[in-house]
Amino acid sequence: MRGAVIHAPGDIRFETLQDPKILKPTDAIIRTAVTCVCGSDLWPYRGVEPTDHAHPMGHEYVGFVEEVGSDVTAVKPGQLVVGSFATSDNTCANCRNGFQSSCLNVEFMTTCQADYVRIPNAQGTLVATDGVPDEKFWPGLLAVSDVMGTGWWAAEAAEVKPGSTAVVVGDGAVGLCAVIAAKELGAERIIAMSRHESRQNLAREFGATDIVTERGEEGAARIKELTGGIGADSVLECVGTQESMSQALHSTRPGGNVGFVGVPHEVAVDGQELFFSHIGLRGGPAPVRRYLPDLIDRVLAGAIDPGKVFDLTLPLDQVAEGYKAMDERRAIKTLLTP
Amino acid sequence: MRGAVIHAPGDIRFETLQDPKILKPTDAIIRTAVTCVCGSDLWPYRGVEPTDHAHPMGHEYVGFVEEVGSDVTAVKPGQLVVGSFATSDNTCANCRNGFQSSCLNVEFMTTCQADYVRIPNAQGTLVATDGVPDEKFWPGLLAVSDVMGTGWWAAEAAEVKPGSTAVVVGDGAVGLCAVIAAKELGAERIIAMSRHESRQNLAREFGATDIVTERGEEGAARIKELTGGIGADSVLECVGTQESMSQALHSTRPGGNVGFVGVPHEVAVDGQELFFSHIGLRGGPAPVRRYLPDLIDRVLAGAIDPGKVFDLTLPLDQVAEGYKAMDERRAIKTLLTP
Repeated sequence: MRGAVIHAPGDIRFETLQDPKILKPTDAIIRTAVTCVCGSDLWPYRGVEPTDHAHPMGHEYVGFVEEVGSDVTAVKPGQLVVGSFATSDNTCANCRNGFQSSCLNVEFMTTCQADYVRIPNAQGTLVATDGVPDEKFWPGLLAVSDVMGTGWWAAEAAEVKPGSTAVVVGDGAVGLCAVIAAKELGAERIIAMSRHESRQNLAREFGATDIVTERGEEGAARIKELTGGIGADSVLECVGTQESMSQALHSTRPGGNVGFVGVPHEVAVDGQELFFSHIGLRGGPAPVRRYLPDLIDRVLAGAIDPGKVFDLTLPLDQVAEGYKAMDERRAIKTLLTP
Repeated sequence: MRGAVIHAPGDIRFETLQDPKILKPTDAIIRTAVTCVCGSDLWPYRGVEPTDHAHPMGHEYVGFVEEVGSDVTAVKPGQLVVGSFATSDNTCANCRNGFQSSCLNVEFMTTCQADYVRIPNAQGTLVATDGVPDEKFWPGLLAVSDVMGTGWWAAEAAEVKPGSTAVVVGDGAVGLCAVIAAKELGAERIIAMSRHESRQNLAREFGATDIVTERGEEGAARIKELTGGIGADSVLECVGTQESMSQALHSTRPGGNVGFVGVPHEVAVDGQELFFSHIGLRGGPAPVRRYLPDLIDRVLAGAIDPGKVFDLTLPLDQVAEGYKAMDERRAIKTLLTP
């Protein structure tokens, strides 16, 4: 089979690789229906994370089950399945508590930009659709496997409630999906912080009621102006820098909540500042598995269309161009079709 | 009148002071029924916080209303009242959101170890009891004005739920009251971290089911052992040091909650560590006013008896000895009677 391999920053190659095999009875092999490039894939691409040795890439996937291990009964060959970027047994204490991305047997996906993919923990990870939905739904289902699930988690971690005011920091695919989630969870006012017109437009289409272009302390001050001087009930931090975290904390009202889903890079939170803010802070890799059945239903019912974050579609063998377009901000997110 | 004044670390004097007067129409004057020394009063006493100039001390109080300003209708002369260490108008947006200790007009009490006290924001701050309860309830009511309210907030911030496991870090008066709160909120297992036999005994009396004497990483490891290797659902951090915060975070299960109510002194939380823990973190000065009516009821119904944290009672004019006994750990908390 063929798949994407990173050799060095900026050097993504589409290569012939060994076909994946069932290694454990809990594995499944899927034939990729659609996959994509994630904002977090740009870290090694940009050299922010080191690449010590060549390795495959990709962690988002929708595919057809080809083969299952002997312990896998939840899905069967031929079914179209969606899974999380974090595989989980869905039976351990952390899974039962709803934090499948902290599963005691978690394995993170890393080989999905390929024709075929081995899925560990398949029994607990994969959710099959009812029949094979029309291809128009595949991008939405693909978004559910990571960015839409992560946006949903941002909204839950920030405790978005009906009638509340939510702010989304970050206008990447996750931030845009966070707008969808805030709307679905009933936020009355959704303020998207974005400087890019195409992303502002998509944010509005997804439910944003206001756009704020200022950043940092200026951005937080603008949020305070828009919220009676107090700050927002919920702030969804979808970036992961010290600046975005400070912007989020300073945009939240006393007793409000910040959900942070951008992996923090050199971020520290001052204990005394957090204390006197009364803000609740929770983040982490999204427990996408918890949301999969519900989000798949919402996509197939047409209630949400997170597939719109894909503004570039390429054949899988042009994956390198998919990275380049996102790196150069010509694309929000690249869909890849084998 | 007479009251306690700190002149320098270790130097508490009981002096003749000017009688307090109504300064604003929202003020009230109370005649102190009972007051006390707080663990946080030991910071300036020990020189951890500087004392630049002599000033009165004390922020916990139960008293009889002597006089009210023209805007105060909620309480009237002769009533026994309880208030919070943080006064609040109870009408601003932050108060309406339940965070009265972030009131836009908050004034923190600082003059309560005295015969008479001026209470700012009296209308929104003071809650009168129904008649004058028996004196045996006064210590419990006094605890409600700070340490019991703070313990309750720790349990709420840590989202203690029926049937859950709660850990309390810190065996001072707040930690002990946090045990009471965890029990009232339905925790099935309550693990108190304490090395002092008298405090362990009181923790058990208040509802602790287990005692852990280890601290730091050893303490966290012991909590993991007691909780199936996962960690506790809720951890109530009632100290405020980097060590106690780390101990709390490392004792909490993925997706669990830490409520931190000890004012943090040089505490920083690493963003990436918090991220991968999935832990929810919330703290702050307790919104005691939100809990006052309920906690007063619980005390007067005999459901809780937080007054037991007072293991030394002295006449107010011996306030200096009250500080000394707490500083030397001869007393958990000193009650003072005018």
